[in-house]
Amino acid sequence: MSGTPERGGARERGDAFAESGDEAPWRVLRSRQPLGTRVRVGDVEFGGPGFVVIAGPCAVEGQEQTDTTAVEVARAGAHILRGGAFKPRTSPYSFQGMGEMGLRLLSDAGRRHGMPVVSEVMDASQIDLMYDHVDILQVGTRNMHNYALLRALAKVDKPVLLKRGMAATVHEWLLAAEYLLEGGNPRVILCERGIRTFEPEMRNTLDLSAVALVKQRTHLPVVVDPSHATGLESLVVPMSLAAAAAGADGLLVDVHPWPEQALCDGHQALLPETFAQLMQKLEPVLHAVDRMLWRPQVAASAVGVR
Amino acid sequence: MSGTPERGGARERGDAFAESGDEAPWRVLRSRQPLGTRVRVGDVEFGGPGFVVIAGPCAVEGQEQTDTTAVEVARAGAHILRGGAFKPRTSPYSFQGMGEMGLRLLSDAGRRHGMPVVSEVMDASQIDLMYDHVDILQVGTRNMHNYALLRALAKVDKPVLLKRGMAATVHEWLLAAEYLLEGGNPRVILCERGIRTFEPEMRNTLDLSAVALVKQRTHLPVVVDPSHATGLESLVVPMSLAAAAAGADGLLVDVHPWPEQALCDGHQALLPETFAQLMQKLEPVLHAVDRMLWRPQVAASAVGVR
Amino acid sequence: MSGTPERGGARERGDAFAESGDEAPWRVLRSRQPLGTRVRVGDVEFGGPGFVVIAGPCAVEGQEQTDTTAVEVARAGAHILRGGAFKPRTSPYSFQGMGEMGLRLLSDAGRRHGMPVVSEVMDASQIDLMYDHVDILQVGTRNMHNYALLRALAKVDKPVLLKRGMAATVHEWLLAAEYLLEGGNPRVILCERGIRTFEPEMRNTLDLSAVALVKQRTHLPVVVDPSHATGLESLVVPMSLAAAAAGADGLLVDVHPWPEQALCDGHQALLPETFAQLMQKLEPVLHAVDRMLWRPQVAASAVGVR
Amino acid sequence: MSGTPERGGARERGDAFAESGDEAPWRVLRSRQPLGTRVRVGDVEFGGPGFVVIAGPCAVEGQEQTDTTAVEVARAGAHILRGGAFKPRTSPYSFQGMGEMGLRLLSDAGRRHGMPVVSEVMDASQIDLMYDHVDILQVGTRNMHNYALLRALAKVDKPVLLKRGMAATVHEWLLAAEYLLEGGNPRVILCERGIRTFEPEMRNTLDLSAVALVKQRTHLPVVVDPSHATGLESLVVPMSLAAAAAGADGLLVDVHPWPEQALCDGHQALLPETFAQLMQKLEPVLHAVDRMLWRPQVAASAVGVR
Repeated sequence: MSGTPERGGARERGDAFAESGDEAPWRVLRSRQPLGTRVRVGDVEFGGPGFVVIAGPCAVEGQEQTDTTAVEVARAGAHILRGGAFKPRTSPYSFQGMGEMGLRLLSDAGRRHGMPVVSEVMDASQIDLMYDHVDILQVGTRNMHNYALLRALAKVDKPVLLKRGMAATVHEWLLAAEYLLEGGNPRVILCERGIRTFEPEMRNTLDLSAVALVKQRTHLPVVVDPSHATGLESLVVPMSLAAAAAGADGLLVDVHPWPEQALCDGHQALLPETFAQLMQKLEPVLHAVDRMLWRPQVAASAVGVR
Repeated sequence: MSGTPERGGARERGDAFAESGDEAPWRVLRSRQPLGTRVRVGDVEFGGPGFVVIAGPCAVEGQEQTDTTAVEVARAGAHILRGGAFKPRTSPYSFQGMGEMGLRLLSDAGRRHGMPVVSEVMDASQIDLMYDHVDILQVGTRNMHNYALLRALAKVDKPVLLKRGMAATVHEWLLAAEYLLEGGNPRVILCERGIRTFEPEMRNTLDLSAVALVKQRTHLPVVVDPSHATGLESLVVPMSLAAAAAGADGLLVDVHPWPEQALCDGHQALLPETFAQLMQKLEPVLHAVDRMLWRPQVAASAVGVR
Repeated sequence: MSGTPERGGARERGDAFAESGDEAPWRVLRSRQPLGTRVRVGDVEFGGPGFVVIAGPCAVEGQEQTDTTAVEVARAGAHILRGGAFKPRTSPYSFQGMGEMGLRLLSDAGRRHGMPVVSEVMDASQIDLMYDHVDILQVGTRNMHNYALLRALAKVDKPVLLKRGMAATVHEWLLAAEYLLEGGNPRVILCERGIRTFEPEMRNTLDLSAVALVKQRTHLPVVVDPSHATGLESLVVPMSLAAAAAGADGLLVDVHPWPEQALCDGHQALLPETFAQLMQKLEPVLHAVDRMLWRPQVAASAVGVR
Repeated sequence: MSGTPERGGARERGDAFAESGDEAPWRVLRSRQPLGTRVRVGDVEFGGPGFVVIAGPCAVEGQEQTDTTAVEVARAGAHILRGGAFKPRTSPYSFQGMGEMGLRLLSDAGRRHGMPVVSEVMDASQIDLMYDHVDILQVGTRNMHNYALLRALAKVDKPVLLKRGMAATVHEWLLAAEYLLEGGNPRVILCERGIRTFEPEMRNTLDLSAVALVKQRTHLPVVVDPSHATGLESLVVPMSLAAAAAGADGLLVDVHPWPEQALCDGHQALLPETFAQLMQKLEPVLHAVDRMLWRPQVAASAVGVR
């Protein structure tokens, strides 16, 4: 029974990968796949030259809301639809999500509008149910350290979107991904969503330097959620553009047709029209850094495709 | 489907309990049990005038290690034995715990030396197995936000030791307890174990002001884990005494007979003799704040006993 | 021109003292004065077996307020009077302090009631003025990194109370003290006053583990300011008792006769009667850790006195 | 003597501007200058459509180093030269800067290569000396709360580059600027340089969302220092591009011809050739967000020019 050496008191630094003395090379490190890994979801490919945009409501609240949002974001060019059916809420009295009905509404909307769907899985016991309804299983920030869930997802043949823990170091985040890779699931998409700091004005502090650092450290694709990171609608567009310029592989954006009625996080949701404007603004910024919005014509090379 | 109102951007403050406009009075608030709640574990009672000390190794590593530690801490006056059978490790390559065998070793040692035992449950699927082996189910810092686990534990007839998330606000911590209470399990013991900050010298920053604040806010008992909080053996005794003076209801202390060989967190473990010294030093500090170490003769009053 | 080696990216850890490779042994380290340093202020002695209590209003607001507070805290047994004449305010429109008049009121009150006084110096240009009025010059949390001020204070023949920066590591704090010692002023009293974290309920997070760590690292006395640390009146007494049990050498407590009218930080000020109760509660806690409230009869030994 | 109301315990949120009840409208708020303020430094103009790049070594170490860097960055298109003559060092034994000689070397290099210069002023007593040598006076992160210094700089007829405190909230940062404006100096350029968080891999956490938020809140120009923010050379280019896309008005970049010999922060300095590449990469990103690198032909409009 080996153990990872720990320095008294300190939190492990990323270079502990080298210091740890563990002979098994970490699967998550970029040296394992210097050209990067591409994760395929349906036709969509993360990690290639195409920048992937995932959009949709924070929570699935009803058919009209979900369908309206799906229509709008698809029209604006979004590639994947998101929506929470099982919501992790701070309070047990808050709306917990529509559950299975929500999954159906989400997958129906995705199918109708030609988009794969992603939704958060909160417990291993939900995996079977969700397997048939979603194309990507999302691990929320509160579950990044839920190793039982990670081990279960490692056995599933479906891509996982792994959100960084709200107070997780880059090192811990990469090792959470290692749980998935080591357990057998190589289709991991990392997602930066802000970290918890002293600043009270914003929900979290979006850490784009971690995105750049992680792109150097690992071969996995990395996307950014500027909605939960900032908690403020007015900051979503600038942060999305910044994420694109920083080298992120995509975005996860909260869009709601009637934010003032949203049951979760209405303050951060973009109106569909604002989302459409964002998509238009993204294009030139991506070109400026030799990227482009993903399109079906962006061929996936065989190298590294999962 | 109601929702808890959220302020744009900000994290919710504790006084949001008042601001939230939710009619159902929160079960966790002190107003529900002004005299405080006492949680009984075997003969031991948390939350009364008696200060409870839980001690043992961070991880169960073998029979000799666990039994030696049990003998020593029992002799020194510890009330409850702890030991991890399922360990949440940052890396999948680190020692993950002895699993079921570890539970057996722990419960045997507890039985042999007359102490109830506590161990961490990492997933709802482990509850049945652990139910027969442990007297208290511990929710680790990484699982405080694991609502699926909390809901499952709410249905279990066994006390739960709920560690504060490493970046959880006091408000979130109390609401995590609310999940347990609301779901039907009133036997909750809170545990402060340090929060994550910028300070690199210590593993976490022990937040004793949160202990004092929580004692004002809730009727639940609150204990302190100075071992994982500081990560440094030399700080465990002073922080334990400080916790006692601050009004905590008990301690959770990492003790190992041979720390340099420990598979987890050896830097923070106390030697048995140091633990014995701590127990002796605690007594006068407790008396100074009108408390005492728990003893069987400290009668539990019928009021508030669970 | 030599430089301290810096690790790429990382913040320096305290053990960098050993790693730094600097031949000149740091004056602040305990190895320089294994028996500890005692700092004398009039009759009062910090760092010996006697626990020193500094009390008074956050800001000097007028003669009646300052004198009333002085009478009350002196009666309750406080050793030193504090009061701010120059207040560092976040906003330029907030009350900035009474300035020189405030210094006079403070020193008069101190003289009348037989207590030395301490007040914050915000700029080197104020040193001369303050020299004649105060017995201890306080460096506020916002000025811990103000090296120009530290170098100036290093040349002054008067004790300095050095507050930890609100986001300063223990290492940086000790090196700020090193500026004073190296520059020629050995009469330094450190003061922990909470660090800035994500927790919104309390003004700062009081870091008592830093107090215990610093007592191991340095020979200088360390006191605690539970008032600015917590920002909540109801937490001041428990945190004061915890500080005493943790091994602190004293306290710095905010006391105001009419807190609801306070111009600064009224929420954290103790009423005089509460302060008196605190003094009474401190005594048994100090005895429990082999300390006692300072009294004139506690003789200063020649060794290490400054 | 009025006071700004403070909420018990909490840190003030930015919207406290509205809550504060202070009748005098804050000068720093965007409503005072809806079209934005342009700050002129020689020919260079901050806050207009032109994006300004300040580059140079962290510390002036000698004539060859400073002149070489000046030549290189000027050739690459930098607009302003920076260099520290007075360095705030954590340790008194670290290189403190060349002082007055350093100022001369810096201003000479700037003059020779046609660039205004900026350097950090650490104390009000240095203002007179620096006035003749530099074109912008920089307030370092450790001095953002040094109100005595801010008040002195408010009386000086020279632009001030105000770095955000390493643990300053956006609210506090804007109020620090208010000290300058209220005191009479309207020529303030804000600079985001990262905030202190738990993440050990990077020196600070660059907070680009604060840049976007501040651009909404105030009329002052805001630049970004990706060098001190990340502490890692490999992250400077991506973060610079991200800053441009986020809406920043410029950059402050650490460039050194021989970083491995740097006396300060060598790990973060860009080689001149990397800086040249950065300047080339910036252009398309700026165009993508309807900006451009500043050029003399970018006329300053009379509106809002200071």
